[in-house]
Amino acid sequence: MFENNDKTNINDLGEFGLIQHLTQAVELTEKSTVKGIGDDAAVLDFSDKKTLISTDLLLENVHFDLRYVPLKHLGYKAVQVNLSDIYAMNGMASQITFSIGLSSKFPLEAVEEIYEGALIACKKYNVDLVGGDTSASVQGLVISVTSMGYADTDRIAYRSGAKEGDLLCVSGDLGGAYVGLQLLEREKQIFLENPQIQPDLEGKDYIIERQLKPEARKDMIELLAKLHVKPNAMIDISDGLASEILHICKASNVGCKLHEDKIPIDPMTYETAREFGLDPTVCALSGGEDYELLFTVPQADYDKIKGQLDISVIGYMTEAAAGCNMISKSGNVHEIKAQGWNAFGK
Amino acid sequence: MFENNDKTNINDLGEFGLIQHLTQAVELTEKSTVKGIGDDAAVLDFSDKKTLISTDLLLENVHFDLRYVPLKHLGYKAVQVNLSDIYAMNGMASQITFSIGLSSKFPLEAVEEIYEGALIACKKYNVDLVGGDTSASVQGLVISVTSMGYADTDRIAYRSGAKEGDLLCVSGDLGGAYVGLQLLEREKQIFLENPQIQPDLEGKDYIIERQLKPEARKDMIELLAKLHVKPNAMIDISDGLASEILHICKASNVGCKLHEDKIPIDPMTYETAREFGLDPTVCALSGGEDYELLFTVPQADYDKIKGQLDISVIGYMTEAAAGCNMISKSGNVHEIKAQGWNAFGK
Repeated sequence: MFENNDKTNINDLGEFGLIQHLTQAVELTEKSTVKGIGDDAAVLDFSDKKTLISTDLLLENVHFDLRYVPLKHLGYKAVQVNLSDIYAMNGMASQITFSIGLSSKFPLEAVEEIYEGALIACKKYNVDLVGGDTSASVQGLVISVTSMGYADTDRIAYRSGAKEGDLLCVSGDLGGAYVGLQLLEREKQIFLENPQIQPDLEGKDYIIERQLKPEARKDMIELLAKLHVKPNAMIDISDGLASEILHICKASNVGCKLHEDKIPIDPMTYETAREFGLDPTVCALSGGEDYELLFTVPQADYDKIKGQLDISVIGYMTEAAAGCNMISKSGNVHEIKAQGWNAFGK
Repeated sequence: MFENNDKTNINDLGEFGLIQHLTQAVELTEKSTVKGIGDDAAVLDFSDKKTLISTDLLLENVHFDLRYVPLKHLGYKAVQVNLSDIYAMNGMASQITFSIGLSSKFPLEAVEEIYEGALIACKKYNVDLVGGDTSASVQGLVISVTSMGYADTDRIAYRSGAKEGDLLCVSGDLGGAYVGLQLLEREKQIFLENPQIQPDLEGKDYIIERQLKPEARKDMIELLAKLHVKPNAMIDISDGLASEILHICKASNVGCKLHEDKIPIDPMTYETAREFGLDPTVCALSGGEDYELLFTVPQADYDKIKGQLDISVIGYMTEAAAGCNMISKSGNVHEIKAQGWNAFGK
């Protein structure tokens, strides 16, 4: 990934030196941040709002492969993935802590890139980096991100709030991140067999970006507020549409009817899935990592969302006894099963 | 550490199954917890208090050695270490998130022990476990803990609040955790050379516990409140007394005079340090991991704290130009230098 020649050894800086160096570019802009980096704990002021908190662990060779993930993208994605959980509560993200464990073979320049990516994400999403931990790792690269945010009590959307008759909606399109990953894995294999061959990713920018540089849907939270829509239930799509639908159904004690032909799939995702011999619908259902928002709204809100190009109504919620089913394009009924990504490989 | 025979393979549970299994014992008792585990983010309500947040990363073979750290102690300590940062703001800890990355060679029973230790700590300190992440690790064991808490604005003690003339105080005693570590390392070496020899730790319970099972000083925060003492500055001692004093001096732009003969060192720490040919004062200054609280109070508060057996006045703050010095037992003046533990080994 990088050469150690002419690079700065992080051992020369020491832990405090490294933290100071990395955090010098940190700016605080959120009004809820009272005190950021530099004390035992950060101090935040959410006044009359509820505090939201979520955390993610990203481990080398489990969640990312440094052979094709650029470090700056990795820092960016680590933040996005975690912010997405705050937006999935229908809240606004406002702060993160960012911890890294890295082996001393990492030159300073490499750590800087990860951090730079994280800070670009913070800036773009108006989030303050207020703390973290920096440590040596005798194993691979470890990243842990915790996000905080806030919401008015009556705006918070839990997984458990879906009601029978609600419309099932999703933002953006699905399956792209997974198909992008297949493309990157294929090129990695080709490269490993013959390092002279340059990766062929031409024209595939969109799905590569979906995998390497996902965007949490802050804009969707803002749009829903503008449309005066309060979702009854909401979750972000990290493990695949099927798994997330089942989470909502279980937590809300409802069933659902999902229409396959309504699932939004980008043409490039569709075509590339086909090239790989994959069913695009399966990629959307089980691929994961799209970080779109899945939510249910009362039928009465249909008029408010129907003109929105970035929101697809993909089905509706039923009584629990009817189960969780997908109506296929050919009209068959299939039970929805979770085959989402599992960190333990089962 | 453990055999895989007759143990439950975590792969059989899958990620969601593992989370469900581990979290079934979680009880929520904090009134500021609105929603704990089970949604995209936890929801907390600190009403008119400020929110405090801190995070730590603990990595196998950097922060702990599974050859002598019992897993339950590891879970317990991981929580304590992080709560300590909230208390060091003169606040009350109320929630944690607890993330684990573990290789699939870990049987379920091993993960349960780590979790059990974490939950014992939560229960003892009235802290709710409200979230986390559980992942496979192809490397060693990874633990990431984030703590939240709260404080009234006018009670928060930053590192930067120390004033010239303040008394420099410390809770408990110092150096024990470091000397306990030396003892464990020695017994590990003996064991590695001859596995038939049982570890000889008899009569050393106190310093072994200081290393393996530290207690964050919540009681000290409660005591200071009861005594109507508001520290001007506060920090917890994770890297050693010297390093923490320098943090306060730098952040507060003051100097200090530390009296060696006032540094509280337990007799067992003292004797065992001597057995190892170590200077007990150096163990206190640079050993770290004691998780005691270092704080400064106005001289006017002296009468309020002087009768407290668990608080030692070890010096006082001076103007910055006078530097940070220790007056040795023989009356010599030494500049205080940080030789605290550095994760990057320098």
